[in-house]
Amino acid sequence: MNISGNSPPELPLPTVLALSGGIGGAKLALGLAHVVPPEKLMIVGNIGDDFVHFGQHISPDLDTLMYTLSGTADTEKGWGLANESWNFMQALKKLSGTSGACDETWFQLGDQDLATHLERTRRLAKGETLSQITTDFCRKFGIEARIIPASNDAVRTIVETPEGDLAFQNYFVQKRCEPIVSGLRFQGAENALPTPEFMEMFRNQLLQAVVICPSNPILSIDPILAIRGVREALRECSAPVIAVSPIVGGDAVKGPTAKIMRELGHPVSATAVANYYCDFLDGFIVDFQDEAEIPEIQKMDVSVKATETLMTDLETKTVLANTVMDFSRHCGNRTFISQKNGL
Amino acid sequence: MNISGNSPPELPLPTVLALSGGIGGAKLALGLAHVVPPEKLMIVGNIGDDFVHFGQHISPDLDTLMYTLSGTADTEKGWGLANESWNFMQALKKLSGTSGACDETWFQLGDQDLATHLERTRRLAKGETLSQITTDFCRKFGIEARIIPASNDAVRTIVETPEGDLAFQNYFVQKRCEPIVSGLRFQGAENALPTPEFMEMFRNQLLQAVVICPSNPILSIDPILAIRGVREALRECSAPVIAVSPIVGGDAVKGPTAKIMRELGHPVSATAVANYYCDFLDGFIVDFQDEAEIPEIQKMDVSVKATETLMTDLETKTVLANTVMDFSRHCGNRTFISQKNGL
Repeated sequence: MNISGNSPPELPLPTVLALSGGIGGAKLALGLAHVVPPEKLMIVGNIGDDFVHFGQHISPDLDTLMYTLSGTADTEKGWGLANESWNFMQALKKLSGTSGACDETWFQLGDQDLATHLERTRRLAKGETLSQITTDFCRKFGIEARIIPASNDAVRTIVETPEGDLAFQNYFVQKRCEPIVSGLRFQGAENALPTPEFMEMFRNQLLQAVVICPSNPILSIDPILAIRGVREALRECSAPVIAVSPIVGGDAVKGPTAKIMRELGHPVSATAVANYYCDFLDGFIVDFQDEAEIPEIQKMDVSVKATETLMTDLETKTVLANTVMDFSRHCGNRTFISQKNGL
Repeated sequence: MNISGNSPPELPLPTVLALSGGIGGAKLALGLAHVVPPEKLMIVGNIGDDFVHFGQHISPDLDTLMYTLSGTADTEKGWGLANESWNFMQALKKLSGTSGACDETWFQLGDQDLATHLERTRRLAKGETLSQITTDFCRKFGIEARIIPASNDAVRTIVETPEGDLAFQNYFVQKRCEPIVSGLRFQGAENALPTPEFMEMFRNQLLQAVVICPSNPILSIDPILAIRGVREALRECSAPVIAVSPIVGGDAVKGPTAKIMRELGHPVSATAVANYYCDFLDGFIVDFQDEAEIPEIQKMDVSVKATETLMTDLETKTVLANTVMDFSRHCGNRTFISQKNGL
């Protein structure tokens, strides 16, 4: 249903499904958009990091995906738009000051980025779904691949810490990931429905591969897997499911992945990531630096391939995406894997 | 009550009260802030033009007053902030495009100006009053005079036209004042309470003067007068009430004043403006160009003074403000006026 009045042309169903969080995942998603015909690619973005700030619905991972795939992202900073201006923030700081009123300037909102949040919020209030809005924004940004939120319902990552529960952005941005993480939960996930477009992919006989991008498994992929029916769909899906390890040389490339894995009692290793996914995983790509872990991972009945996983430019992103797609064609013994899981 | 936690220092009660709309009124308000000790000046701003856009509470007249008195206004454009940037609007236009989704780019929102709207809206949602927020913003803008909304309740100017009712900004900005005005009403005015600070002025024995700034009487001053008790308070107030005509040479200086007066069947003249206010008016200042109308206005038992009323720079604003204050000291026979109205 398109409530904005003019129906978009019917598109062919994509045949490659990628699950992604923000920065790291978006890099591989961009690579995939270069090696898969873009109309064949659907990227499902994490919404666990979404939050409301100044009354605005902010979807950090969807925005990072959208900005990255449209080539408008600030690749140096790792978030937000390139050539961004900060005049709103400057003016806000002047108005916030020391009045005793709670200072809400901890989350950086660029002037152009604000348009995304305000227009998204306006349309949500009108009754459009996050998925419809994201699809329309992608079109405006000239993105041919489809970016879809994991759900149109609210799923909120709550970080449990000794100082109490924190909404994800308060933990991640306001507290700079400093509190010790004692647990995580995904508020709303058990009642949220996955987006119809997302679930339709699993019913597509032509589905070639499902790619779990090298995002934080606990913070970015788990909120997707926690949504009702997603993990089951991955277990039962006919196409091979391939994950790329976000761990390189026993550490995370960026962000709090390693810290949180440690605090939650997981070893910081590719093996631990594979273990997280092993109930639905067919293939796992590790970095050359973690080759020693391959035998351990293979014990999970998962095909493993070592390669260069650091993505520093478009070429390395494309090369890794090509490796992922090639690999998916060689570890597709889905019947065997399904039997392994007793399905 | 100050809910933000730290009480502002107790200020002496102001002794000059000005009622103002946006641009024209703000010019005289700025002049008054230069000739009256600023802590003695309270400016009550019209809120009939307020509206909600992108979920944000926008108060155009309060903002114009605040920007003008802090010297940050774009005096050339006549609205908004000087040195404003428009990156939000540019990005919004890109996202709006031709999707069929309603295009909401008709109201220009500057990047810095947005901070005022978002921070105001955030604090309103927290339960602060418009008056508390405006007072705090003025402090942050370094304004010593007090700017207060006419009410903390909603008063909305509705423009009645042959094509139906229009919210003020839709008439004023979106439709560029083009529809014929068949009537005006101020939704909510009969149930709105004037701000306590505003009403307190009338109980102040030291009140020197009430100044009706040269704003549109129908669009900018009437929404203030329509609030419960305001017109009565002006009739009964002990200090002289002086208005400055917004009509110069039988035409409005700027904006749709003349067009609307005509469409509503009023002659476009200083006399018509005086007539609008005559039940509470003690003194009326007209432009030299309208001197011929003085005898007619005097018939309303109102003292009249002709002067140069065009305010083109700070000097002319200050000179006019001085004239207003001087004049107020010479037409304060309030007992007589009150008798005239049978009070």
